[in-house]
Amino acid sequence: MEIWEFMLVVMRAQATDEQVRNVVETITSIGLKAHEIPGSQRTAIGITGNKGELDPAVFELLPGVAEAIRVSKPYKLVSWEVKTEPTIVKVGSVEIGSGDLVVIAGPCSVESHEQTFAVAEAVSRQGIKLFRGGAYKPRTSPYSFQGHGEDGLKLLAEVRDAFGLAIVTEAIDQESLELVEKYADMIQIGARNMQNFSLLRQAGQMRKPVMLKRGMSANLEEFLMAAEYIMAEGNYQVVLCERGIRTFADHSRNTLDLSVVPAVKKLTHLPIIIDPSHGTGRREQVIPMARAGIAVGADGVMVEVHCQPERAWSDGPQALLPSMFADMMQQLKEIHNVVSNLTVASAK
Amino acid sequence: MEIWEFMLVVMRAQATDEQVRNVVETITSIGLKAHEIPGSQRTAIGITGNKGELDPAVFELLPGVAEAIRVSKPYKLVSWEVKTEPTIVKVGSVEIGSGDLVVIAGPCSVESHEQTFAVAEAVSRQGIKLFRGGAYKPRTSPYSFQGHGEDGLKLLAEVRDAFGLAIVTEAIDQESLELVEKYADMIQIGARNMQNFSLLRQAGQMRKPVMLKRGMSANLEEFLMAAEYIMAEGNYQVVLCERGIRTFADHSRNTLDLSVVPAVKKLTHLPIIIDPSHGTGRREQVIPMARAGIAVGADGVMVEVHCQPERAWSDGPQALLPSMFADMMQQLKEIHNVVSNLTVASAK
Amino acid sequence: MEIWEFMLVVMRAQATDEQVRNVVETITSIGLKAHEIPGSQRTAIGITGNKGELDPAVFELLPGVAEAIRVSKPYKLVSWEVKTEPTIVKVGSVEIGSGDLVVIAGPCSVESHEQTFAVAEAVSRQGIKLFRGGAYKPRTSPYSFQGHGEDGLKLLAEVRDAFGLAIVTEAIDQESLELVEKYADMIQIGARNMQNFSLLRQAGQMRKPVMLKRGMSANLEEFLMAAEYIMAEGNYQVVLCERGIRTFADHSRNTLDLSVVPAVKKLTHLPIIIDPSHGTGRREQVIPMARAGIAVGADGVMVEVHCQPERAWSDGPQALLPSMFADMMQQLKEIHNVVSNLTVASAK
Amino acid sequence: MEIWEFMLVVMRAQATDEQVRNVVETITSIGLKAHEIPGSQRTAIGITGNKGELDPAVFELLPGVAEAIRVSKPYKLVSWEVKTEPTIVKVGSVEIGSGDLVVIAGPCSVESHEQTFAVAEAVSRQGIKLFRGGAYKPRTSPYSFQGHGEDGLKLLAEVRDAFGLAIVTEAIDQESLELVEKYADMIQIGARNMQNFSLLRQAGQMRKPVMLKRGMSANLEEFLMAAEYIMAEGNYQVVLCERGIRTFADHSRNTLDLSVVPAVKKLTHLPIIIDPSHGTGRREQVIPMARAGIAVGADGVMVEVHCQPERAWSDGPQALLPSMFADMMQQLKEIHNVVSNLTVASAK
Repeated sequence: MEIWEFMLVVMRAQATDEQVRNVVETITSIGLKAHEIPGSQRTAIGITGNKGELDPAVFELLPGVAEAIRVSKPYKLVSWEVKTEPTIVKVGSVEIGSGDLVVIAGPCSVESHEQTFAVAEAVSRQGIKLFRGGAYKPRTSPYSFQGHGEDGLKLLAEVRDAFGLAIVTEAIDQESLELVEKYADMIQIGARNMQNFSLLRQAGQMRKPVMLKRGMSANLEEFLMAAEYIMAEGNYQVVLCERGIRTFADHSRNTLDLSVVPAVKKLTHLPIIIDPSHGTGRREQVIPMARAGIAVGADGVMVEVHCQPERAWSDGPQALLPSMFADMMQQLKEIHNVVSNLTVASAK
Repeated sequence: MEIWEFMLVVMRAQATDEQVRNVVETITSIGLKAHEIPGSQRTAIGITGNKGELDPAVFELLPGVAEAIRVSKPYKLVSWEVKTEPTIVKVGSVEIGSGDLVVIAGPCSVESHEQTFAVAEAVSRQGIKLFRGGAYKPRTSPYSFQGHGEDGLKLLAEVRDAFGLAIVTEAIDQESLELVEKYADMIQIGARNMQNFSLLRQAGQMRKPVMLKRGMSANLEEFLMAAEYIMAEGNYQVVLCERGIRTFADHSRNTLDLSVVPAVKKLTHLPIIIDPSHGTGRREQVIPMARAGIAVGADGVMVEVHCQPERAWSDGPQALLPSMFADMMQQLKEIHNVVSNLTVASAK
Repeated sequence: MEIWEFMLVVMRAQATDEQVRNVVETITSIGLKAHEIPGSQRTAIGITGNKGELDPAVFELLPGVAEAIRVSKPYKLVSWEVKTEPTIVKVGSVEIGSGDLVVIAGPCSVESHEQTFAVAEAVSRQGIKLFRGGAYKPRTSPYSFQGHGEDGLKLLAEVRDAFGLAIVTEAIDQESLELVEKYADMIQIGARNMQNFSLLRQAGQMRKPVMLKRGMSANLEEFLMAAEYIMAEGNYQVVLCERGIRTFADHSRNTLDLSVVPAVKKLTHLPIIIDPSHGTGRREQVIPMARAGIAVGADGVMVEVHCQPERAWSDGPQALLPSMFADMMQQLKEIHNVVSNLTVASAK
Repeated sequence: MEIWEFMLVVMRAQATDEQVRNVVETITSIGLKAHEIPGSQRTAIGITGNKGELDPAVFELLPGVAEAIRVSKPYKLVSWEVKTEPTIVKVGSVEIGSGDLVVIAGPCSVESHEQTFAVAEAVSRQGIKLFRGGAYKPRTSPYSFQGHGEDGLKLLAEVRDAFGLAIVTEAIDQESLELVEKYADMIQIGARNMQNFSLLRQAGQMRKPVMLKRGMSANLEEFLMAAEYIMAEGNYQVVLCERGIRTFADHSRNTLDLSVVPAVKKLTHLPIIIDPSHGTGRREQVIPMARAGIAVGADGVMVEVHCQPERAWSDGPQALLPSMFADMMQQLKEIHNVVSNLTVASAK
């Protein structure tokens, strides 16, 4: 386990020899090693030996320095350098990251017994094995419906018993986390809590797998480091979820950043799924973006389904009708077929 | 107390009379009122009477509808429509929002007795009455220093006793919130927790004032609704804090969005301060942006000061040295003088 | 042909009757029609009858007004309301927008006879009919290679003759536009010139089809209005191209915004292709994102191919090798098969 | 004159000695110099000797390489390394960059003789020496008013004669550039043309000073390189102008990025002004942000003034009334006083 350890200090073209010497001495004085790299017009100095964070600005303050550049990758447990096999996360009978097509479906919120069972029945008919539904809803307004809490979780547990569906649901604080761990099969950490480090640590102490959603303004490093928080506590069953970032674009609620999928695959062994429902916020974009998500190589998708979206208590406009969901499933299977054949071919 | 209640449904140019009628009937059937607005080439229909959230997509699904536009402002307690006098938040002997120049200063993290007392002594000498310092530090990496916790809070309490400084410090979860309430004078909710609604609600149940930092990707409505969460629980002593948003610009760590100050002043009676230390992340930008913050009309600034920034355990590159801090204070006083004279002049 | 014509003026809850009357009179005095919409706690006033742009701020300055909201869609020629059949743009023997899989390929820059012919031979072998290659290169630095200009265009014309490939290449100003019109089959307007309205107008006067790339910070309305500039001059043969927007995300050079494809399809009859080479800037993301582009429903993709990317004069890191390109073609055909079967099914 | 020339290639922890050797040989084979930097767990290799652009991806493709990091600053003529005195740009009797408070004012568009003269009279009365006004207007819609062209320029020339005001006005293509050069005193290149490199080069061949506005999605490097394009042609009289970047924030039309001012001052000798009118798009934010702009250390501000904003042909909502402009001038003078005293003090 390690942190990348290089830094490069670039001197100004006019820097004097004495200034270079001073930088070298400063580096040495804090226990690091300096490597001079003389260029034709200026000198750079490589630094090795640092164990933790090293701050460029410490060197940028020294006379004659033009810039200090950090070359650090703080990833440990999430990284391919630590684990060379892809992680497969098992939830119920489903193996996320195994190469199978994984689809998680269900309503945004658990509203009532009737609504929840109706959706569960509809998605179950399509062969779905993972059911989503919110009992704790983070809402922009304190006056909006905030979820049924433990009663909602109990309803989800009934759905599991009735339909054999494993349950994925969000926890928003310590109390709800303990209840979600008790009733559900997979703990969801929402985008707004991606850097709620206290919650991440608690999730790391749970024994159920965690689905971690990317924060709306999180870059890839921050996203992976949030997973690192969970894993550092001992819970290695983490699935990443891209659900859209915040940009100036206003034709969708968020901008679903699909290129993060190959970027994630390059850096980490953890599986990643996409959430086109929250990622677009508009029903007519959900199915095309779900297809694109599977085509780009995601391990699965999570979508919202509602039998009466116009009466949904939250996020109705992005929910698919059961008939649309059935169409989507058919399309995803065909796209997945193409993509998984490719993988097999390239593996030969 | 109210929520704005209008929605406008715009029909397509080719929409038939029957389609218009159908929209009107749908509106009426859910207990709302429809107001037809015939244009020269198409019709729009105004909706009034809704009490809570109304979803445009419900209407966009109806045949003949081009677009439905929400005209809702969900603000209640934060709004000028509820309270017509500016809120003044008292912390120790300081009145934030009173028109006085408010400066909050201190180290990023409470590191040691020596470091904390040295900084406290330095800022105290400049007439500062509010001291900041983190005992709980939200860090991107789980392997970075996370703060001294309760021991840090005790040190801050010692600083209060020794220098007569009121203490502002961050809480990151329920446990730390209770301790911060016990030891400090003002509870800070950090940018990463701006939509940790559970924490906001708990802060709303505390009796100490709250400083709420804007999330890195929060728009103004979300920022104000986060304050609304706190106030809805009964704690009206809320100070907003702009600390930079996430953009593509890479010459500063974040983009300090100063135009939010006049925008906030237009919509809410709550005071707002700016944090140029986190907002820029670069020492050489802190003082210019602090000046700009006072010039734009903020109620105060919060800055980080460290006697040995190159040895700081966190965020050293953005910390001011005590001598720079003294210069800044002088400059802010002069700028504040200009701005407050203007206010007096315009009030006459 | 028309511009949407509604505006909604929302009064404050405390607005007096006289203030409402004043707003109505102002509306009437500038020749527009006012429609009062009384709500339970405040009044809104709909405006109809305006022909051009109407500025919300004009009304927001009036006493008692809370907000004025524009309900305008400025699209004319690009809109489905004007033309109800999808536009098919013919370039050489290829019909973009017809439902066929369209792939445009070639090097970033035309560097030499040898390089250009080698790439042309490689892509031609995969059945490609549209060849791209830059003779005029917009580069961030004035000291970078700026393209061979007319000599490059002549080389492209030779490629057409030798391989039967139609040529797509960028014009950057009036002079190059005239030369591109002379030598090539399709005029490309680059992202940096998407709001170079002078160039757009000139392109509108040409008789060759135009590929218009989305600007890095253009929202959908601005993108479509740029197409409108070209069409307003009489050239209706416009193909849109998504090539990535600028966001904070740093794992790809730009963020390829695939959800713009269904959004474009909803608003306009013009075809849209995607450019995953510029959209990601990283070779390993190009093929996955090309697959995703076809899966989301784009009419085609444009990719860069180079036989020796490590020696490319520009954008080598995003170029595919010929063998990768062959793999990609196979994958895209299979994905396209799935997607076009869906379309046929849904059309029945 | 030079380009920074370093690159750092970081090997994977598991890289073999042979892989390191292969990287070193590749570097040498293309005429560059390799400097090995052995760390405790992996090796990095510094590269020196490259003259132009060097592409990280060339090395990232080699086996065993984790990442290649460019350490290049492409600035030449804009840089402090070439010119150590601040550039002062003279326009009429005004010296931009001299430390004097510079205010450029006038209407968005030149509409009529009456309107233009009325505004000129109003701003002139406040001691303004630089007058702005658009004769060529880049507009999102082809159906919006596009400016009076040469007639507008003639009107501006009349204003110069009548009031002794130097004229700043925008050129949008080669033709208008030649006319602007003929009639005006300073050529403005707008944000949408910041990377219209053809136009930049032509402006570089003119003998009148140029005001270059930052593009809405331009980072600082791109902004300075656009100035480099102008200077590379021999025109060194360039003034930068910050006018807001595009972000998700919707309380202002753009996000005026004031921290770019200290960042610009650190890298270049060119002066920079700010444009709070376009930067905010809302009248009530213009004066506060103008104050902030002077407080942050900008060399001046450019604002729009109109005697009847509600009848302006473009951008009325951001125009100041003459009385507001007079107030602003008073405030800016006082703020400038504070800031320039500081500079004098710090220079001692």
